[in-house]
Amino acid sequence: MSFEIPTSQKGVVFETNGGPLEYKTIPVPTPKPNEILVNVKYSGVCHTDLHAWKGDWPLAVKLPLVGGHEGAGVVVAKGSEVKNFEIGDLAGIKWLNGSCQSCEFCARGFEPNCPQADLSGYTHDGSFQQYATADAVQAAKLPKGTDLAEVAPILCAGVTVYKALKTADLNPGQWVAISGAGGGLGSLAVQYGKAMGLRVIGIDGGEEKGKLIKSLGAEKYVDFTTSKDLVGDIQKATNGGPHGAINVSVSEKAISQSCEYVRTCGTVVLVGLPAGAVAHAEVFSAVVKSISIKGSYVGNRADTDEAVDFFVRGLVKSPMKVVGLSELPHVFELMEQGKILGRYVLDTSK
Amino acid sequence: MSFEIPTSQKGVVFETNGGPLEYKTIPVPTPKPNEILVNVKYSGVCHTDLHAWKGDWPLAVKLPLVGGHEGAGVVVAKGSEVKNFEIGDLAGIKWLNGSCQSCEFCARGFEPNCPQADLSGYTHDGSFQQYATADAVQAAKLPKGTDLAEVAPILCAGVTVYKALKTADLNPGQWVAISGAGGGLGSLAVQYGKAMGLRVIGIDGGEEKGKLIKSLGAEKYVDFTTSKDLVGDIQKATNGGPHGAINVSVSEKAISQSCEYVRTCGTVVLVGLPAGAVAHAEVFSAVVKSISIKGSYVGNRADTDEAVDFFVRGLVKSPMKVVGLSELPHVFELMEQGKILGRYVLDTSK
Amino acid sequence: MSFEIPTSQKGVVFETNGGPLEYKTIPVPTPKPNEILVNVKYSGVCHTDLHAWKGDWPLAVKLPLVGGHEGAGVVVAKGSEVKNFEIGDLAGIKWLNGSCQSCEFCARGFEPNCPQADLSGYTHDGSFQQYATADAVQAAKLPKGTDLAEVAPILCAGVTVYKALKTADLNPGQWVAISGAGGGLGSLAVQYGKAMGLRVIGIDGGEEKGKLIKSLGAEKYVDFTTSKDLVGDIQKATNGGPHGAINVSVSEKAISQSCEYVRTCGTVVLVGLPAGAVAHAEVFSAVVKSISIKGSYVGNRADTDEAVDFFVRGLVKSPMKVVGLSELPHVFELMEQGKILGRYVLDTSK
Amino acid sequence: MSFEIPTSQKGVVFETNGGPLEYKTIPVPTPKPNEILVNVKYSGVCHTDLHAWKGDWPLAVKLPLVGGHEGAGVVVAKGSEVKNFEIGDLAGIKWLNGSCQSCEFCARGFEPNCPQADLSGYTHDGSFQQYATADAVQAAKLPKGTDLAEVAPILCAGVTVYKALKTADLNPGQWVAISGAGGGLGSLAVQYGKAMGLRVIGIDGGEEKGKLIKSLGAEKYVDFTTSKDLVGDIQKATNGGPHGAINVSVSEKAISQSCEYVRTCGTVVLVGLPAGAVAHAEVFSAVVKSISIKGSYVGNRADTDEAVDFFVRGLVKSPMKVVGLSELPHVFELMEQGKILGRYVLDTSK
Repeated sequence: MSFEIPTSQKGVVFETNGGPLEYKTIPVPTPKPNEILVNVKYSGVCHTDLHAWKGDWPLAVKLPLVGGHEGAGVVVAKGSEVKNFEIGDLAGIKWLNGSCQSCEFCARGFEPNCPQADLSGYTHDGSFQQYATADAVQAAKLPKGTDLAEVAPILCAGVTVYKALKTADLNPGQWVAISGAGGGLGSLAVQYGKAMGLRVIGIDGGEEKGKLIKSLGAEKYVDFTTSKDLVGDIQKATNGGPHGAINVSVSEKAISQSCEYVRTCGTVVLVGLPAGAVAHAEVFSAVVKSISIKGSYVGNRADTDEAVDFFVRGLVKSPMKVVGLSELPHVFELMEQGKILGRYVLDTSK
Repeated sequence: MSFEIPTSQKGVVFETNGGPLEYKTIPVPTPKPNEILVNVKYSGVCHTDLHAWKGDWPLAVKLPLVGGHEGAGVVVAKGSEVKNFEIGDLAGIKWLNGSCQSCEFCARGFEPNCPQADLSGYTHDGSFQQYATADAVQAAKLPKGTDLAEVAPILCAGVTVYKALKTADLNPGQWVAISGAGGGLGSLAVQYGKAMGLRVIGIDGGEEKGKLIKSLGAEKYVDFTTSKDLVGDIQKATNGGPHGAINVSVSEKAISQSCEYVRTCGTVVLVGLPAGAVAHAEVFSAVVKSISIKGSYVGNRADTDEAVDFFVRGLVKSPMKVVGLSELPHVFELMEQGKILGRYVLDTSK
Repeated sequence: MSFEIPTSQKGVVFETNGGPLEYKTIPVPTPKPNEILVNVKYSGVCHTDLHAWKGDWPLAVKLPLVGGHEGAGVVVAKGSEVKNFEIGDLAGIKWLNGSCQSCEFCARGFEPNCPQADLSGYTHDGSFQQYATADAVQAAKLPKGTDLAEVAPILCAGVTVYKALKTADLNPGQWVAISGAGGGLGSLAVQYGKAMGLRVIGIDGGEEKGKLIKSLGAEKYVDFTTSKDLVGDIQKATNGGPHGAINVSVSEKAISQSCEYVRTCGTVVLVGLPAGAVAHAEVFSAVVKSISIKGSYVGNRADTDEAVDFFVRGLVKSPMKVVGLSELPHVFELMEQGKILGRYVLDTSK
Repeated sequence: MSFEIPTSQKGVVFETNGGPLEYKTIPVPTPKPNEILVNVKYSGVCHTDLHAWKGDWPLAVKLPLVGGHEGAGVVVAKGSEVKNFEIGDLAGIKWLNGSCQSCEFCARGFEPNCPQADLSGYTHDGSFQQYATADAVQAAKLPKGTDLAEVAPILCAGVTVYKALKTADLNPGQWVAISGAGGGLGSLAVQYGKAMGLRVIGIDGGEEKGKLIKSLGAEKYVDFTTSKDLVGDIQKATNGGPHGAINVSVSEKAISQSCEYVRTCGTVVLVGLPAGAVAHAEVFSAVVKSISIKGSYVGNRADTDEAVDFFVRGLVKSPMKVVGLSELPHVFELMEQGKILGRYVLDTSK
């Protein structure tokens, strides 16, 4: 199979943090020996993309930058050393574009923690363009026939919550609480939890959220807007507290509460990245209850393959809305206004 | 083998929290079907004994109470259902006197977390007497020939730090930091760490402490009274930060610093029980560094057997000073004044 | 709650191995301080009961003996030291009646491997009687409302396959092969595997077995009576071989094949107890493929609680046929003739 | 730093399996974008090199071939994509030259099990030459000042036994048996075991071997030439059997015995690659004792770094004899005659 590759394409670029997001014609990049060139068909939009544009995280972005790290498309070219992709294969672009594969973290499968980590849409031009390069070793393999629009949010949001659930280190049949279960990450977490044989209790606000959460597979729902004793209600519903608690919500209060309601010997997982937030845990209680509090970042190659596999098998669906790539500025606006439920996915042809 | 058992004995009793500590003649207790009667020869004195007497912990003590939970002695009688001790065996009395052996925590080896946990010198008369009863299943087995004075502090202090080191889940060759390495718990932690094949960095204040800590097997020492950049100094000495950090010191600041200096993907263990202290961890950093913060309480039966085995093999020594049981009130005074280095051990015959 | 306890009852007793199985009136036993007295309503019949009667295993049985180790009933009395059962609670009698709770194996949750293990229906009178004593710590806790006939086979067969699946140490989404999937143990293994989020491939002989196995939740079925390349067919169906293989079938050939078809880095579990069989594994291949072969015995307290919980939640059903206790000799006959599919359960009132 | 790189060099080449081993002038290879060029100073000689030359393993070798996979030298050039080595760094060439870094095995740190594994001195020209190319990701990083002759055998023999010990999954303080403890692999295994905090029992034949083994850190030694009950003697010496058993000896009988003497719930590790040998384990006993039998191949990047670190810290010494590269044919002769104790290391300058 071979593809005709144009020399120019459409993409969204910004020159300075917070500066204009220009939808314009840019050159198609050339893959290095270890890279593939992906014809991106769809790309999800993640809060991190907003942070990258605004530049409000401690880590500097490449400038000018093409953002995006949830891209799904077709491999149209590859470098001389690439052995794991063929032209025509489907591939996914994800947050971790590449790592050294050699440091103590890479050698142990913690490649997202590599000090030389290269990040799509952050330190490497990402998926908000029609043709993007990606390190072949880290690029996600997508089976033939995968719906490229639907899989896009799995590549970051899906992998992230799946990894958080693995970090909680639970056995099938145990309870997991998802704090913020009705949001984009949370609704995926509920589905992954159920597919992993866990019993899921969702926490969020309002009746509508409760209906959604239960329809996704949660056995129990606690509404923080009406509960008079959130900790007590969660512990009662789970016969002593969930064995694990996943904080996709990034409120400090929710995190502290999860340290209280989690079962003795249980695990609290921190997964969101709130700027400046601090987790507080009472030491006496943490020791006597012997709980663990674990930070979970993004998934590695194995986590990605597994998260995609659950999606491909139909066990996880990602609620999303497709708009054109040119509409990215508007999507960022909605995101800043907190008006987004689920995930926006960009069609790079529009 | 058989022993003549008196009907009365000497012990230290208090009737009310903070009330008089009376060294007096009291009845020898009778073991229940599942208990052994131990002729206690020596008992260590732990900070917890002071808390039990003062009654300043959230959990109520039995009253009147004979304190003590680091007792070492000889089995002189046993109940009808006891199968694991013979008369004449050496036995140790430890913090966890008994548990239900049946709840979800007991069934998984987390018996110190059993909701029905019975605690020596707290909810069950302990080792500050010449004859004490102990649940046979939880009592520590001590090999013939064990030095009963020296082993006493191992039964709580030793087991506790050994358990904390296991909780850090490190591999031989990795670095562990002991915060408060020069104290009673810390000096045992240094030795256990070394015996487990770990590389130890001790943190404490002053030159003398440094010498002691290095003599016990630490490769590196950082003096917090002179270091201008504690986090940086520890990370430099360990080529990127220790893989695990054991907080036997209970200062809030030390705990927060350990979350900073611990290596990426490393584990911070909380082991002390400071009244009211809170552990603070910056969420962004905890997530990106993917660290774990774990509360470690006391050891179970297996941890106890293992901790005793390291001692019996001569790999761990416990620095202690022996005085008579009747001097307990004075030992508590010194403890309240912060004047105790190492461990006091009481000789019950005096 | 209290119960009137008769002094005599009906039970099936044998005086010598292979001797007459007498259904007769015998005294009701008295619980020791650590025991409960269970009014057994139903008891499953297991192949082990046949071995116990015939005496063809290397381990001697108590004589005379009341067999049976899958009993479900009501607690009607308890000894002085029993804290975890109340009169009127439902309880299960299982293979491991009691252990020392103190040896290196008990201390680590491997109590079935305790050298002093006491076995129901083998070294301790079991559940083929209306009133049986059981060590309270090991007796299974059954929630109110549990169907006592249906739960009986879970107490040994269910726990055993659940434990084997845990021993395979798989992640949700991975493949597990059940060799002998259509039998009593196998059909439970298929259901537990599915409930644990695993993808199940069943192996057995015949179309009917295939239909049963798929109806229980297996995604794939390989018929060894028609497959011309069993190893190849299994590897093809699972895209490279199952990550785990559970041998409930006890054929030497099936075991050897499982070492071949299991995925690289996968785990083969041995769970049946064929007299005299030997597992053969080619060393070169075992090393290069880095496989593990693990013996799995019976479950501990935690495994039992978990296996019962899956049943109570309705995720596992046990196909069985109820007959009267007096018919045990006939059930043994059918068993010897290999005429039993599923599980026979005895009603002790008949 | 830069090096003048010649266009030709000395190496040992063979054109056909079992054909002449020619020490001659050959071209210096050019590194690919992902490779480094190593000026090999020393190379160990391993049994595998003999197999590669003879071609008696199921896997075909590249022809003509330069063998060798225990090379230590200096990086003198590197490809465009190499980020983890600088010119002048020390590097090691090991058995696994490269892997796809992307398959299910690579993604989980099992890269030696990668179906596309590229093997030094087998499918890729190895270290029996002065200048060899190596995949930068897999090449071993050696700290400045490392003794290049002494470290050579660590790169395969050392890593292999270290990995086997990790596979046994033991805790410090537990017993490990090394079967064949006096040989090249065995003597390294004894030292690694001790450095990992394990208690080591060595098994081999003869008094001299016993002295060597004890001098390397084993607490106990059992001589199979004089023991009348090997299994019993080992179990007595270890108070019930070693928790792990490492079979560096490749005798079928030794392997079977290790399944017998290993402690209940213990682990037998198979590490050697005897052509055609079969491991036999009695199923009944394997199940009731709940043992694991695990194949352990060679180490991954992390295992290599760790094994080298123990060597660099001086905890492991490798007994070896240095001869010139031109003498390789003679070394192979001695090896075939079974006349080699310890390890031969080749100086590539001679």
